[in-house]
Amino acid sequence: MGLDLGAILKTGGLAVSDRTAIVSINIFIALLCSCIVIGHLLEGNRWVNESITALVMGLLTGGVILLATNGTNSRILVFSEDLFFIYLLPPIIFNAGFQVKKKQFFRNFMTIILFGAVGTLISFVIITLGAIGLFKKLDVGPLELGDYLAIGAIFSATDSVCTLQVLNQDETPLLYSLVFGEGVVNDATSVVLFNAIENLDMGHFDAFVLLNFIGKFLYLFFTSTILGVATGLLSAYVIKKLCFARHSTDREVSIMMLMAYLSYMLSMLLDLSGILTVFFCGIVMSHYTWHNVTESSRVTTKHTFATLSFIAEIFLFLYVGMDALDIEKWKLASSSPKEPIALSAIILGLVMVGRAAFVFPLSFLSNLSKKEARPKISFKQQVIIWWAGLMRGAVSIALAYNKFTASGHTAVRVNAIMITSTVIVVLFSTMVFGFLTKPLLTLLIPPRTGPNTSSLLSSQSILDPLLTSMMGSDFDVGQISSPQYNLQFILTAPTRSVHRLWRKFDDRFMRPMFGGRGFVPFVPGSPVEPSDPDSHLGTVTETDHS
Amino acid sequence: MGLDLGAILKTGGLAVSDRTAIVSINIFIALLCSCIVIGHLLEGNRWVNESITALVMGLLTGGVILLATNGTNSRILVFSEDLFFIYLLPPIIFNAGFQVKKKQFFRNFMTIILFGAVGTLISFVIITLGAIGLFKKLDVGPLELGDYLAIGAIFSATDSVCTLQVLNQDETPLLYSLVFGEGVVNDATSVVLFNAIENLDMGHFDAFVLLNFIGKFLYLFFTSTILGVATGLLSAYVIKKLCFARHSTDREVSIMMLMAYLSYMLSMLLDLSGILTVFFCGIVMSHYTWHNVTESSRVTTKHTFATLSFIAEIFLFLYVGMDALDIEKWKLASSSPKEPIALSAIILGLVMVGRAAFVFPLSFLSNLSKKEARPKISFKQQVIIWWAGLMRGAVSIALAYNKFTASGHTAVRVNAIMITSTVIVVLFSTMVFGFLTKPLLTLLIPPRTGPNTSSLLSSQSILDPLLTSMMGSDFDVGQISSPQYNLQFILTAPTRSVHRLWRKFDDRFMRPMFGGRGFVPFVPGSPVEPSDPDSHLGTVTETDHS
Repeated sequence: MGLDLGAILKTGGLAVSDRTAIVSINIFIALLCSCIVIGHLLEGNRWVNESITALVMGLLTGGVILLATNGTNSRILVFSEDLFFIYLLPPIIFNAGFQVKKKQFFRNFMTIILFGAVGTLISFVIITLGAIGLFKKLDVGPLELGDYLAIGAIFSATDSVCTLQVLNQDETPLLYSLVFGEGVVNDATSVVLFNAIENLDMGHFDAFVLLNFIGKFLYLFFTSTILGVATGLLSAYVIKKLCFARHSTDREVSIMMLMAYLSYMLSMLLDLSGILTVFFCGIVMSHYTWHNVTESSRVTTKHTFATLSFIAEIFLFLYVGMDALDIEKWKLASSSPKEPIALSAIILGLVMVGRAAFVFPLSFLSNLSKKEARPKISFKQQVIIWWAGLMRGAVSIALAYNKFTASGHTAVRVNAIMITSTVIVVLFSTMVFGFLTKPLLTLLIPPRTGPNTSSLLSSQSILDPLLTSMMGSDFDVGQISSPQYNLQFILTAPTRSVHRLWRKFDDRFMRPMFGGRGFVPFVPGSPVEPSDPDSHLGTVTETDHS
Repeated sequence: MGLDLGAILKTGGLAVSDRTAIVSINIFIALLCSCIVIGHLLEGNRWVNESITALVMGLLTGGVILLATNGTNSRILVFSEDLFFIYLLPPIIFNAGFQVKKKQFFRNFMTIILFGAVGTLISFVIITLGAIGLFKKLDVGPLELGDYLAIGAIFSATDSVCTLQVLNQDETPLLYSLVFGEGVVNDATSVVLFNAIENLDMGHFDAFVLLNFIGKFLYLFFTSTILGVATGLLSAYVIKKLCFARHSTDREVSIMMLMAYLSYMLSMLLDLSGILTVFFCGIVMSHYTWHNVTESSRVTTKHTFATLSFIAEIFLFLYVGMDALDIEKWKLASSSPKEPIALSAIILGLVMVGRAAFVFPLSFLSNLSKKEARPKISFKQQVIIWWAGLMRGAVSIALAYNKFTASGHTAVRVNAIMITSTVIVVLFSTMVFGFLTKPLLTLLIPPRTGPNTSSLLSSQSILDPLLTSMMGSDFDVGQISSPQYNLQFILTAPTRSVHRLWRKFDDRFMRPMFGGRGFVPFVPGSPVEPSDPDSHLGTVTETDHS
């Protein structure tokens, strides 16, 4: 900027210190707009979704910049973990919690925890062991035990963002909540795993360290959840008490946005899992706070959170696409161009095996615990669950950058190969697997009620048994529950009775204090928006109280 | 963070590079929440507004941090021009354009330009000359001609943010639009002035340089406006054409947010005035784009832009309050503690004189051009206009930091004194003048219809003649316009006929292409929200077409 004095004279705005930052912001915003417009135009297309559009746009832009700068630079912004973990991830996860169908989520709570925590650990062990066994055959370079463990953690992180775009909450609400809920717990688990590995004393790895790690994970899980719930309840209480007399939309929306972000940052400050905290904060806010605000605040918050999440998602995929063409890494890794590709293929194989290793056994367990009258989980349905979590995304990239580079730049060849392989895995899984998801879903769940696949009823009628049977916590059959099988009883009874107790507690103490829809008596036939985060709850309340 | 390895093991989120950043963000968000809650509690109070609350909270927090760190540091964030000009200013200015009552704004367009551009230049000349004359009596240090000119530009920037919180758009729409419109033009003028001065060759200051400067200002004004209008129209066209078949709220809101920001950043990129660009983009978006989107998108955008602006404003005042206690500057300046205070008093005096020097003559000009049947602008009403622009704010701070420091830190004594004086002027004018504004308004405009001052009718009935008479561009008296006075004719005729032509052009070509409410026939009695940016327009259309 110092060279450009003539330009400063013309400047109407202040001369901002870094002109390249302005150029980058302009390009990024223009690209975001293009992605949204193209995404809209391709909406009817059965193969392409917004993630793939953003990835391709990022790749193209990276290519153009590469050509324009004669192959010296493809990235406009240097990848920053802070950008990802402080600005982009919170709105995505919060919105997920805010919009998730809570009944579905809590009905499958135990399954989600099993899949998300135990499943991720199984996947982590298999990928780590596989990497130790298979990488040695390739001339990758010196990798230590810590590196292999980190690779296991990096590639255990499924991409909930991409999965959520492929599945539709309204068409397959139960499948959506299961896969998504697993994704959130999976994100938290893999990040905790990764950090624990970074600080493990490899010389003294024994049972005590393992127990210590498990204890810490449980501690993290519960404290993070409690913090999120507490922040959400505080926001509900503040808005209910203070703004009762005179509602002010700006203040209400501000408080909701700020408190949501505060929950995430407080969690970061206290070294907890911000992902879990902000997710539960979102759930509590949609259950209590959202019902205490004015009608316009409800519309505003619902769409604002969705929009911010939408922009953050597109931004992420754009960035990953652009980052894939970073010439610096490719040059370092290209002394043997086959290696990253071979490595990526191995990792992709391990990812698929690792996921199969917990999805199918857990489904089998669920089938064992099922009453005979209810349909078993078919092989096709298991495949959908398995497939939905195969994609790898920004969390893997962020963790890989954290492990194998210092602030986005890498100089050692083995690190360059690992980063490149991660990028290939993310690109391939997102584009190829993402590309195939829509057709696969259509193939595995053939539309029953004519050609309209998006019918809520048809999808639910097929998938409902699949998922509710996993836990058996169906409210409709609550009255006729006879413990035919011990395993089923162990799994279903606590969930159901806890849910019952919770509903009583909620109606008697929580709602009078913190507000919420249940506090206002549910009127059947009252105008409820189809995408209302609580819309199923009202029906449950009715069924439950009848 | 490197010292804290144990904490990282517990970390659920990734260890972010800068832990102090997390602490700062937490404190800032908590303070923002507190300000909103306290602002709500004090809403009935006639002395305090949200700006003053935020300033006081900032001062208190600064004091606490000062005590906690034993007087070494009071600031959590270092003042950054980028933060101010890239993130905080755009939402405030855009929202102002988006929510402004367009009819009032354009009716007073010429007056606004006169006050904003000519007025600011008059104020700038007086403050500069006054500073040259009066500062020499104080032992300030070596100040050059360029420094004095910069001081003139810095203290010519009125604080529209603070003014807007004091005035109420619904109670006094015309006064609001005049003072606010002047504020936007004033911001642009003073920033352009400041940048021009920074690059002036003081050795060759002659008439040619002056003409060149005036030409550049006019060029900047028109190109910036055109860019803003073009971006706004593009957004209207894109949303009208692409999302016509199937409206998607997230996409619409995203496109509106991104295009608004894009207009500002494009303007920065092209070395234009981002403030003007984003302001006119806001006006065009509220006139066309806003009417092309779904009902929920309308509610969402209206409240989201207002909320973002609200948060940015509180953030700014919090920061200014916190920055006021920066011990580094005070230590440097405190070798002679009387000087900053004397300097601030002189500047405040000059600011008041400088503003009086253009408000009262221009009002006199307006009174001369008035028909005898219409009431003249009383002295009391002139005082309100004068008073409303006395406050100085974040633009002054940002410009002062740009001139007198390098990246937020200062080592030279004279610079420290100037920064300190700027902070004192901003604090004093915002708190004391802001404090007195509500009582002053009540005193000067005594409520007519009983004790309820906030009655729309009573305020308008007094202030309407004041402001419309300035330009005489009243649609009601359009039919009986006989040029009784040449001066009046010169001022009123072009505005009125331009407005007529514009309305015809708008109805025939613009609205069919870009949408907008006028495109849909106006139905009298249709449910129009009171704060609808367009609500007055419909009435005009009706009157005009009758």
